[in-house]
Amino acid sequence: MKVAFQGDRGSYSEEAALRFFNASFESVPLSTFSGVYDAVENGRVERGIIPIENSLVGSIHQNYDLLLKHHLKIVGEQNLRIVHNLIAHPGSKLEELTEVHSHPVALGQCQDFLDSHPQLTPHVAYDTAGAVKMIKEKSLEQAGAIAGSFAAEQHGMAILSESIQDEPDNHTRFLILSKDVAEYSENAKTSIVFALKNLPGVLFKALSVFALRDLDLTKIESRPLRKKMWQYYFYLDFVGHVEDEAAKNAIGHLREITTFLKILGSYPTSPPAND
Amino acid sequence: MKVAFQGDRGSYSEEAALRFFNASFESVPLSTFSGVYDAVENGRVERGIIPIENSLVGSIHQNYDLLLKHHLKIVGEQNLRIVHNLIAHPGSKLEELTEVHSHPVALGQCQDFLDSHPQLTPHVAYDTAGAVKMIKEKSLEQAGAIAGSFAAEQHGMAILSESIQDEPDNHTRFLILSKDVAEYSENAKTSIVFALKNLPGVLFKALSVFALRDLDLTKIESRPLRKKMWQYYFYLDFVGHVEDEAAKNAIGHLREITTFLKILGSYPTSPPAND
Repeated sequence: MKVAFQGDRGSYSEEAALRFFNASFESVPLSTFSGVYDAVENGRVERGIIPIENSLVGSIHQNYDLLLKHHLKIVGEQNLRIVHNLIAHPGSKLEELTEVHSHPVALGQCQDFLDSHPQLTPHVAYDTAGAVKMIKEKSLEQAGAIAGSFAAEQHGMAILSESIQDEPDNHTRFLILSKDVAEYSENAKTSIVFALKNLPGVLFKALSVFALRDLDLTKIESRPLRKKMWQYYFYLDFVGHVEDEAAKNAIGHLREITTFLKILGSYPTSPPAND
Repeated sequence: MKVAFQGDRGSYSEEAALRFFNASFESVPLSTFSGVYDAVENGRVERGIIPIENSLVGSIHQNYDLLLKHHLKIVGEQNLRIVHNLIAHPGSKLEELTEVHSHPVALGQCQDFLDSHPQLTPHVAYDTAGAVKMIKEKSLEQAGAIAGSFAAEQHGMAILSESIQDEPDNHTRFLILSKDVAEYSENAKTSIVFALKNLPGVLFKALSVFALRDLDLTKIESRPLRKKMWQYYFYLDFVGHVEDEAAKNAIGHLREITTFLKILGSYPTSPPAND
């Protein structure tokens, strides 16, 4: 099975894929998120894996927008603990480095480390694993990169400082995308997106359709509707499978007050993250 | 009255301030959002103005996080229509330009224009008005900048192409910050932030406290709680003043199911944007 992800080999997305698919897949690294959606849609790969939410920085909004635009199904989710490390050429020493490359979010999550090492000038890179690859390929002996240990392993580079992020509890939730729906599962979660009619208290009414049927919500996210000022799409996750009686009735009830509704998929909930 | 904003003179924030304060204020341009909060908090300025939401790209999350961190009150809001223009040195011609500088969001909102002018290499700048200032100060005669007409005016530069954004309907909502609460107003809106107890259907219950009292919600936004994985702060706006009986009761009711609640301010709703 071919699995596409955004970023270079050794990225957190590839690490999440490794946990989800138990190593039985072929990696297809791509440069953009929308490239991942396209690759699944046009059949170049069977699955795509994309980060949707980080416990510190919040949602990856671009992926919410892409879920709406493309016609793919969510068939699984994977939580991954994010541990950033300072990675450099084997044999190099921390005190000899003068610069550090990484994705801006990763640099931001290692602010305390960077503050206490002012000799390291931060440089913004396209992605974390890509920064490791770049300092290797360009033989930048005085440069480090911030990335996961998996990136060091994949590119044959050394970890100089382990777990350098400010907040130890840092998790990312990834979604697995496919052209077809997942098989039925007992412990399922369902993701939907909808836009509401212009009625008084309409968001309350929308949430009622779940509360009245004891369906628990696990996430709600609003995104602006591009053509209608200050109106929103709501992305909502609830516990249950769309084929279950209660969920089916809730969706039917919700359709009464929506102008748009799309079921993004029902899928087994993720096992606990690796910590 | 001194008013701080992020960005250079002629920025959209300064233009929004001009509409809100009717020109009777002294501008204090600062380089960061958190600098604006600090300036209000330490009394260097009386008011700050910050963008909170754009109708195309959504919320400015950093400002939601800063509202939580700082002890300031929202005392007003201002909607502003965003019109991007290609700005360059007076006398220069579009066909002579080879590069264009702007904030990445503004570049992204002018994608069609950039696609149809492939001779213009895009360069990322710190902010829109700052890009205009930079090409002026560095005498970059072959460079253009994408910014509002107010930026061209403030820096004595020329508009070569007007209204070059892909989507004509592009609005940003700004908030006005102060150390003290606003005077009571009839047509008020209230902004609050809260975290919920871990109870079944608790978000539904939270929204009930407003629905049961006919208080309309105008916005809901979730942001992760940094220390507790997959739990959220909810930022919510509702129509009404916190001193009104119904709003007071709703807030009291909400406190029964929250672990944290902060009232960010009650303030007059914005007049329609300039379009």
